[in-house]
Amino acid sequence: MNRKELFRQIQRKSSFLCVGLDPDLRKIPAHLHQEDDPVFAFNQQIIDATADHCVAYKPNLAFYEALGAKGWESLAKTLDYIPKDIFTIADAKRGDIGNTSTLYARAFFETMHFDAVTVAPYMGSDSVVPFLHFPGKWVILLALTSNAGSTDFQHLHVSGEGEELFKTVIKKSQYWGHADQLMYVAGATQAEKLAEIRALAPGHFLLVPGVGAQGGSLAEVVKYGMNKQCGLLVNSSRGIIYAGQGKDFAQVAQKAAIQIQQEMSRYLENL
Amino acid sequence: MNRKELFRQIQRKSSFLCVGLDPDLRKIPAHLHQEDDPVFAFNQQIIDATADHCVAYKPNLAFYEALGAKGWESLAKTLDYIPKDIFTIADAKRGDIGNTSTLYARAFFETMHFDAVTVAPYMGSDSVVPFLHFPGKWVILLALTSNAGSTDFQHLHVSGEGEELFKTVIKKSQYWGHADQLMYVAGATQAEKLAEIRALAPGHFLLVPGVGAQGGSLAEVVKYGMNKQCGLLVNSSRGIIYAGQGKDFAQVAQKAAIQIQQEMSRYLENL
Repeated sequence: MNRKELFRQIQRKSSFLCVGLDPDLRKIPAHLHQEDDPVFAFNQQIIDATADHCVAYKPNLAFYEALGAKGWESLAKTLDYIPKDIFTIADAKRGDIGNTSTLYARAFFETMHFDAVTVAPYMGSDSVVPFLHFPGKWVILLALTSNAGSTDFQHLHVSGEGEELFKTVIKKSQYWGHADQLMYVAGATQAEKLAEIRALAPGHFLLVPGVGAQGGSLAEVVKYGMNKQCGLLVNSSRGIIYAGQGKDFAQVAQKAAIQIQQEMSRYLENL
Repeated sequence: MNRKELFRQIQRKSSFLCVGLDPDLRKIPAHLHQEDDPVFAFNQQIIDATADHCVAYKPNLAFYEALGAKGWESLAKTLDYIPKDIFTIADAKRGDIGNTSTLYARAFFETMHFDAVTVAPYMGSDSVVPFLHFPGKWVILLALTSNAGSTDFQHLHVSGEGEELFKTVIKKSQYWGHADQLMYVAGATQAEKLAEIRALAPGHFLLVPGVGAQGGSLAEVVKYGMNKQCGLLVNSSRGIIYAGQGKDFAQVAQKAAIQIQQEMSRYLENL
């Protein structure tokens, strides 16, 4: 899915919501454990309930890998089940030397058919560029993350560059790929930093985690991060998928998604 | 496996060789494609041929993920097949917010039974520490990698700290875990930097990729990186597993492993 199409979906649904599909066996409703594949059963109902209100799904790979090969089967089934007009993100945070990154790219773009994969920048250009060689596919590069540990390295000032490391990541990576194939992860818990990121990457989409459970505010994200083509995918995982615990969990998730979508709809009117 | 045991294995085998199990379907010998599980068949023969000459195996996850759920099955079978006195490393380069890193740790330490996993530092303390909560297990943190892109960020000087980023990673991470649970990736292609890493982490094991195919020299690695308990695991992947292409590939791999092991043996005599 290209940038224009993504923006079209955002306008059509009045939503820039990304739903994180992070199915934890210890958190999904008890009755689903009778199913052959509880993870897929859970995802299926979440997708049915939220597909009209979001533009992207983001399975976090850790939740599937923790289940071994069976988890990968659940993931493959989930991906097949997601409607084709919804953007799909493998939240995998991969990155390795060139030939290895190419294999990771094949895993997510060819073996499975994700639109995008999250990539960690630490190993530099040749760990990121192989993912950019797949036409129509996206890299979502970690820039500024939403966790406490983001201050350990991302905020360090880099001498010579005279700026925090995450800004150097954003600047350098723009030599590797353009705004039609490269997005950035920009955590909502540091909303004032979003303005600085937006200044460095005016046209790029930002994937924003940390709204909801992690404490970020949607109003602030929009204030500092929105551009003329929206330019935002705001993720919510736990706040939606675990909003309910009972047999009606999917309806409760739907309500939670609609609530966010309606707030988003108001912000999109100002575009 | 703890540090003492690892050193004991190194002494017993006169080897600090780690063999990278990176089975690429397009590179493994043609006759193996008749097998039900060509990847496992390949690994099995490589393990049979090299187990007496190495102290660690390091499957790179990308090679298995590229095959989907089937790849994870091959990986699980491979891990079961590795003799229990050999150290096992999931070369996964993971790292995510706390609850997600815990799930990755479970994937590699509990669902599978790896001794160690490689972790990327970019997201900071709470992305690394969850892996350190598993007794008897190891984090191998990326510090200085062997690829060209390592200069993009790892070599940047961090102001205030007055040193390259990879050194800050090594220093900070020593507050998170100790030398019995934490190793560092230190690329052999920058051997002179190994002395600086060794000065910062005198007791830690270093996992050294880049010898062989990537051009690093074993003599230099030993000169700059060895400590009194060896403190080195030197990895070779392509140089061993693809040394031969025919039906005798395992014997050829064995010869390649023995050649490295014999050189290692000479260096260990000086300990």
